[in-house]
Amino acid sequence: DIVYVSISGFGENGPYAQKPVYDPIVQAFSGLTTVQAGADDRRPRLIRTVLPDKLTAVTAAQAIAAALVGRLRSGKGQHVRLAMLDAVLAFLWASDMGAQTYVGEQVSQRTAASFIDLIYETANGFMTVAVMTNKEWAALTRALECPQWLEDSRFVTPALRDQNIDARLEMTQEVLKTRTTEAWLARLEAAGVPCAPVLTREQVIAHPQIIASGILLESEHPTAGRLRQTRTAARFEAPTVIRHGAPHLGEHNQEILSELGIARETIEALRRRWLIGAEVPR
Amino acid sequence: DIVYVSISGFGENGPYAQKPVYDPIVQAFSGLTTVQAGADDRRPRLIRTVLPDKLTAVTAAQAIAAALVGRLRSGKGQHVRLAMLDAVLAFLWASDMGAQTYVGEQVSQRTAASFIDLIYETANGFMTVAVMTNKEWAALTRALECPQWLEDSRFVTPALRDQNIDARLEMTQEVLKTRTTEAWLARLEAAGVPCAPVLTREQVIAHPQIIASGILLESEHPTAGRLRQTRTAARFEAPTVIRHGAPHLGEHNQEILSELGIARETIEALRRRWLIGAEVPR
Repeated sequence: DIVYVSISGFGENGPYAQKPVYDPIVQAFSGLTTVQAGADDRRPRLIRTVLPDKLTAVTAAQAIAAALVGRLRSGKGQHVRLAMLDAVLAFLWASDMGAQTYVGEQVSQRTAASFIDLIYETANGFMTVAVMTNKEWAALTRALECPQWLEDSRFVTPALRDQNIDARLEMTQEVLKTRTTEAWLARLEAAGVPCAPVLTREQVIAHPQIIASGILLESEHPTAGRLRQTRTAARFEAPTVIRHGAPHLGEHNQEILSELGIARETIEALRRRWLIGAEVPR
Repeated sequence: DIVYVSISGFGENGPYAQKPVYDPIVQAFSGLTTVQAGADDRRPRLIRTVLPDKLTAVTAAQAIAAALVGRLRSGKGQHVRLAMLDAVLAFLWASDMGAQTYVGEQVSQRTAASFIDLIYETANGFMTVAVMTNKEWAALTRALECPQWLEDSRFVTPALRDQNIDARLEMTQEVLKTRTTEAWLARLEAAGVPCAPVLTREQVIAHPQIIASGILLESEHPTAGRLRQTRTAARFEAPTVIRHGAPHLGEHNQEILSELGIARETIEALRRRWLIGAEVPR
């Protein structure tokens, strides 16, 4: 009744099944580097976080929980298989593989995704602004003091604004350059326009919203010192605590092997022969 | 005993709790655009897939499965809360927030992540190569016919290769330019060097490995036609089938409301008054 998950790079079958794999290999092979390039004919680009590695971990956690639900219902465990490549493809499909979704229909290669331009330069830095609905568009024209944009025939519907995206983003950029990020955030927030400052990593941990949300937890690690980490993203009704830090190699040998019913003398013998890692004293 | 998940943008507390949010807003606010830029002092860049939107969905699926395990054990449901911002921060933390992990220690701003350069140009396109261990490094020098690199004091250990990454990547790039992607893939694969072609979206669906893995399923949608989609990434022992396509608005009204014990006449009355969407005939 064990739930067991095997994780592979390319899957367990096929010509690539035995190939060694690192995160960028999966990025290149899955189409993710083409997606990041924006169009098929541009230079492919890597995502600069190990997305395949980490997404596979999140997907594995979901699969384990689902298999545990299955076991609680049926009494039976199972062997679940997960490939990094599959995790990335399933992630990309809905939003980035539209041209590959309709079987047999020819669809020309994707043109550049436009939202790369939603990072705007201001008088003193960068910010982002994203408007979709007519109400948000009207609010933006007010906040930017450009009421004439509301009359512009290129921008009267969401579809037209999407079609004329280059003109729209350039015009928005020109206006945003004239004031500071702080000034624009105040104006845009007051008008109800979706916007945010672009934060660096150091700014993230100091921002009042991050502090209020409680996403960052501090804890004392016996050897590493005081650590700042995130709690689990989902908040369950039971409070989230960090019970202990990452264990040292072999730290829980005694505990786990005893639980499995292995005699203390056997554990000692394994340790003496260096077949299991030694515990590091706290 | 209901399991109920609420998803918000910035969380339910704090100054940003009520702010409208789209995917790029979370990218900018979470530090993700700085991570993609590579260093704090470079122009922030968006990830060109809606990572916060989709990661929040995957995280919510995990949370729901975990809450279902909880309910099967305790008999009680719960209200789970999840913020897009928290999902992204938890995702970034382990690999990209190292400088923010040790509380109270000053760490200089992160320098450029180097793996952006792991996409190499070849004589006819692009490919990726990633070597970490000494064994892989030796294999690369053989495949590239550059045995002198093995003697180079800048590259004798993984730590030194990391330190001298610019020189190493430039030298690798120069050699890779001299042959086609296909020629290099054959040589590097034979030598056991982790490598892969960079695939465009159209190439992904046609690649023998993708076909062998069975990640892509075709199905007939009653109104949309024949569709190509991914199965779930994790393979459970029960086979994955696509039972039906995305429903039309109101398609399952009758079924769901009947299951909830609502009388047929009441459902009809709701429909006549347009309080629930009409079913679209298949």
